[in-house]
Amino acid sequence: MQNHLLLKALKGEPVKRPPVWMMRQAGRYLPSYMELRRKYDFFTRVQTPQLACEITLQPVDQIGVDAAILFSDILVVPQAMGLDVQLIEHKGPYLPKTIQSHSDISRLESDEAADKLQYVYDAIRLIKKELNGKVPLIGFAGAPFTILCYMVEGKGSKNFERARQFCVSKPLEAHSLLSKITDVTIQYLIRQVKAGADVIQVFDSWSGLLSPSDFSKFARPYLIQIANELSAHAPVILFPKGSWYALEDLAVNSKASALGVDWCISPLTARTLTAGRVTLQGNFDPAHLHLSPEDITQEVHDMIRQFGPQRYIVNLGHGITPDVPVQNAKAFVEAVKSFKS
Amino acid sequence: MQNHLLLKALKGEPVKRPPVWMMRQAGRYLPSYMELRRKYDFFTRVQTPQLACEITLQPVDQIGVDAAILFSDILVVPQAMGLDVQLIEHKGPYLPKTIQSHSDISRLESDEAADKLQYVYDAIRLIKKELNGKVPLIGFAGAPFTILCYMVEGKGSKNFERARQFCVSKPLEAHSLLSKITDVTIQYLIRQVKAGADVIQVFDSWSGLLSPSDFSKFARPYLIQIANELSAHAPVILFPKGSWYALEDLAVNSKASALGVDWCISPLTARTLTAGRVTLQGNFDPAHLHLSPEDITQEVHDMIRQFGPQRYIVNLGHGITPDVPVQNAKAFVEAVKSFKS
Repeated sequence: MQNHLLLKALKGEPVKRPPVWMMRQAGRYLPSYMELRRKYDFFTRVQTPQLACEITLQPVDQIGVDAAILFSDILVVPQAMGLDVQLIEHKGPYLPKTIQSHSDISRLESDEAADKLQYVYDAIRLIKKELNGKVPLIGFAGAPFTILCYMVEGKGSKNFERARQFCVSKPLEAHSLLSKITDVTIQYLIRQVKAGADVIQVFDSWSGLLSPSDFSKFARPYLIQIANELSAHAPVILFPKGSWYALEDLAVNSKASALGVDWCISPLTARTLTAGRVTLQGNFDPAHLHLSPEDITQEVHDMIRQFGPQRYIVNLGHGITPDVPVQNAKAFVEAVKSFKS
Repeated sequence: MQNHLLLKALKGEPVKRPPVWMMRQAGRYLPSYMELRRKYDFFTRVQTPQLACEITLQPVDQIGVDAAILFSDILVVPQAMGLDVQLIEHKGPYLPKTIQSHSDISRLESDEAADKLQYVYDAIRLIKKELNGKVPLIGFAGAPFTILCYMVEGKGSKNFERARQFCVSKPLEAHSLLSKITDVTIQYLIRQVKAGADVIQVFDSWSGLLSPSDFSKFARPYLIQIANELSAHAPVILFPKGSWYALEDLAVNSKASALGVDWCISPLTARTLTAGRVTLQGNFDPAHLHLSPEDITQEVHDMIRQFGPQRYIVNLGHGITPDVPVQNAKAFVEAVKSFKS
């Protein structure tokens, strides 16, 4: 590996500057991605290793990030478990058949689901070959609670009210479903590592909708199970978006190497809660990528000073939005590279 | 006033049990509201004092809450300031002409906007007469940042990305707009109190989308200005939804009598951050209103024990959802009445 920054930051080893990557860095703000998006539909892009590879490499080549992240989607897991997952233009994901009962859950594929994601492992092998050690590759999956949200609600939602009601009013079904998703996810992520992923990130995009008490029931055990089993294979980053109240607990009680934080917590509070026990990743507000490149540079330097440059991975607090000018994304990355302690 | 619980809890005076009301208690879960909703469109319901009065009283009579809250909408303020506000069935609010520039802001009505809301003051007078001292009446408005979100974005949104970009990249325009909204809101709320509102709640429904640093710029000064000016007229409840990081500051530095909290913070953490300086209001997760009445009772009693029964107003952490059975809403309220310290 030529660029060790991410792996060192995850191990807590000293670095001369923190590593930087951006959630959704292979995405719609990049004109080269938009070209492929016009030619191939979403699942063709995800399921064709050559396309997934090309898209994954674009921000490495064009923006200069310190890590590649597999181009894929968290909903390939429910798909591999047998659910129909559609992507409706301008509306987002749609699952016509949702999960509501024990019998729905029992029909979900479990043992062989990870086998159906061979195209992901093929993409990873191809990406690793093309990267040729330039930067590490991050594999990923959705966390079980977030996957449950889509399986039960059937589409995106502001509060995932139905999914949360399902957990609260049918806890046995919820835990049965969460366990099944967890088992598949662990197999899937281990196979991503075996195919070449250097780091694993687990996205709990909707865990912040849960009260601390419900988080401890419906999100925490499964996040910890995944982190602890995967940590034997590769460093794990957990990103329970919005669940600031869980940072201390996850820092102490999980084997995650890093925790992601969104922008709704100050760097100082995040550091205080985790007390130097884990690497932190985040948390630039993507809305600030609409500032001038000079102001972005200033704010990135301030953010690094606030987190401190060690045990820290510079990232956004959420995915980069499609309307960010490419030069501003570059300014974000360049700011990290020009940082002097 | 026959029921002093809310006013006592707001003043920090001892009560034998905490008061209870529910955000959106006059809403779609009530069959009697749905009947009026089928007959009259939204703005007819809001702008006709007799209808607003009837709707406001429904939960007092049917559910037995300890306070009435004016039936209205936070978007009557942008409407009074001259913007076209439409309500599109199944989609929510839509403002065809959004605010983007200084000249857009200069065209907004300011001095006479509060005069245009005479129908609200008329509704309040009618409600007070009908209530006849049974329970206090809560008036309300949206906080300036939340109103800005709708004025700039033009509709509901998951992250109000455009509105936040507007604040960040055009801070002069943002502050000019926020000041103008604040001035109108203060006049509007003072006139609500003069018409008879006993308590004022300010909803900052989207402040939780802001980083602590942006909150301190774009939400905090205006919330504090409103709380401080209104507190000379009536007790004020500030509800900066999701902005847990601001609780300590607002408890110390605003003249609000109470702070609302959503369910994504534990009662203990909320109490610790505010250190007994203000009354707290919240924070039952509406998803838990789908439990059995027995389980709701148990959870409400637990919640009261965790917050402690003094300086506390029992409420939800967000509006009651349309699918909650009426008997469960009643169980929520009854649980508070049966609470024994």
